Amino acid sequence: MSSSRVRKEVDEALYAFVDRQRPGLLGISEDLSPMLSALDVLLAGGKRLRPAFCYWGWRALGGADGPEIIAAAASLELLQASALIHDDVMDGSDTRRGQPSVHRRFEALHASEGWPGSAVPFGMGAAILLGDLTLAWSGEMFDTSGLPGEVLAPGRPLYDVMRTEVMCGQYLDMLEQARGTGDVESALRVVKYKSAKYTIERPLHLGAAMAGASAADLEALSDYGLPLGAAFQLRDDVLGVFGDPAETGKPAGDDLREGKRTVLIALAQERATPAQREVLRRRLGDPGLDLSGVEELRTILVETGALSGCESMIDEFAAQAHVALAAAPIAAEAVAALTDLTVAATARRV
Amino acid sequence: MSSSRVRKEVDEALYAFVDRQRPGLLGISEDLSPMLSALDVLLAGGKRLRPAFCYWGWRALGGADGPEIIAAAASLELLQASALIHDDVMDGSDTRRGQPSVHRRFEALHASEGWPGSAVPFGMGAAILLGDLTLAWSGEMFDTSGLPGEVLAPGRPLYDVMRTEVMCGQYLDMLEQARGTGDVESALRVVKYKSAKYTIERPLHLGAAMAGASAADLEALSDYGLPLGAAFQLRDDVLGVFGDPAETGKPAGDDLREGKRTVLIALAQERATPAQREVLRRRLGDPGLDLSGVEELRTILVETGALSGCESMIDEFAAQAHVALAAAPIAAEAVAALTDLTVAATARRV
Repeated sequence: MSSSRVRKEVDEALYAFVDRQRPGLLGISEDLSPMLSALDVLLAGGKRLRPAFCYWGWRALGGADGPEIIAAAASLELLQASALIHDDVMDGSDTRRGQPSVHRRFEALHASEGWPGSAVPFGMGAAILLGDLTLAWSGEMFDTSGLPGEVLAPGRPLYDVMRTEVMCGQYLDMLEQARGTGDVESALRVVKYKSAKYTIERPLHLGAAMAGASAADLEALSDYGLPLGAAFQLRDDVLGVFGDPAETGKPAGDDLREGKRTVLIALAQERATPAQREVLRRRLGDPGLDLSGVEELRTILVETGALSGCESMIDEFAAQAHVALAAAPIAAEAVAALTDLTVAATARRV
Repeated sequence: MSSSRVRKEVDEALYAFVDRQRPGLLGISEDLSPMLSALDVLLAGGKRLRPAFCYWGWRALGGADGPEIIAAAASLELLQASALIHDDVMDGSDTRRGQPSVHRRFEALHASEGWPGSAVPFGMGAAILLGDLTLAWSGEMFDTSGLPGEVLAPGRPLYDVMRTEVMCGQYLDMLEQARGTGDVESALRVVKYKSAKYTIERPLHLGAAMAGASAADLEALSDYGLPLGAAFQLRDDVLGVFGDPAETGKPAGDDLREGKRTVLIALAQERATPAQREVLRRRLGDPGLDLSGVEELRTILVETGALSGCESMIDEFAAQAHVALAAAPIAAEAVAALTDLTVAATARRV
């Protein structure tokens, strides 16, 4: 099955699951309709990377194609929706996937209905609850995918560890932002747990384990998935500063305004002159940063060599991933699909 | 097994589960230690009502005693921990179970470490993440309780519907607060989904379904659980206004300061004179409400007959529950334990 075909089937499984929930929610109350609309809008975007890696982990170990593995893999997109909704609350982000973030949508609902009191806590509360609901639904969608119990059983511990790792990774990320130290090593630790394991390694493991992978198989997939995941996150960080807003779905420079402590930023801080370091200290995380401020920070990222250093790291991680993939004892069709995904996840687009 | 024995075993299962997670978290980073401490403090309190109802639902249908059902039932306490942590963020509550709420704990950590920037978003973010983690762990604890797959299978749909119902109930609750209409009927709808089903009916169903309950058995348990759950929530609402802070773990009048739209308040609003209604409008939800303001509102709740009306509703719901319990086709030992729980959950304490 081609990558685009997997994506289409994952989409269909995802929308079918949400449609099955719809009457239950509206049966409780028609007032829950805005929760469903907010989820529909969020799920319309996204690259479905985690379901793809889960699916190809399954196929890599010889699992047969079918709607059940697609549904189990698609459940990861609900986990991701939950993480994004809560992330946007924590970061105070206005947009996600080119649309208003969930908490902003509910603030707007509060305002348009003219309810008394402040719209802000209402928006935050609704987003926390929708994130909780999608987190619960991800487990439910996995359990009800139609895969038999004995197939799901070896997947469950991986689902569990993946959720724990991503939530811990998010906390460590927030801690790095709070401390503001921002060395490259700490930033790479966040990348490992928040991104590399969660986006690539664990979804691969999940699919592979359900198809009967041995410990050695899982290790071979880690050798591929962890460097690819790191490369993917570093690419995302570069796009977050230098990318086209039409592609990222976020206004230019938003990561700089949020003061995200990425590897890219850590590299710049290590290499900055005292004058550059002072600009970084003053302007990173300034919510009022305008386009000339964004440009000033971009110049520092280029002139310190942080951007080229980050690109080198991406190239090196991607090369490691390619070598590990070539060596992995997995099905040829999966190698081809994972090679495509590797290129798509790490390609230079700036 | 006695109620106090169930509670003790639930406690042990809960602490053992968290202890099994500890090395994994600290293996990711020692920096995760405050997450574990915050959870330890929260789990030290609580009445373990939901595990008790799940356990007795199982026993009611003839399920055999054992550590596996205790662990499956105890997992509901992690779901409840998640709901409380997120609830406190949404309500901006300072305390929970007589201790600082989770977000306040992490604000204090930020302050004591002298990190730059604001402590408030750090506290909120950490609490959102710990709530996510405990929500994920509740499912994991249920899955790994040791009950065989074919016993867990009929429980899963009930676990799923329970989570969806409580999250939807929370949203409807927030919506009622936002609209500020507050009629008795709307307040009772919130009670049904946020409390009656979540605290009593669904935990009973969960245990019973895993022990092989028929649809008729589940219906008989609903006839008991729904009125009991409503009575329990109305009792909680009365305690929230008139209760002893030492027992509720919250400062006196906190529910009034938060402006919670309970059935008790809705009754008062329906029966208030224009002058009383004006006081309610002005003082309910006033975060700066002092003790004389609390006393003024209490007087209105007494003088309008809202308090006695609420007590009558509690009596009536409790009586319905007792009648339904006596008629339910369930094991005698479970009837005795559920009778005790009914009394404990609804008894007059003011």
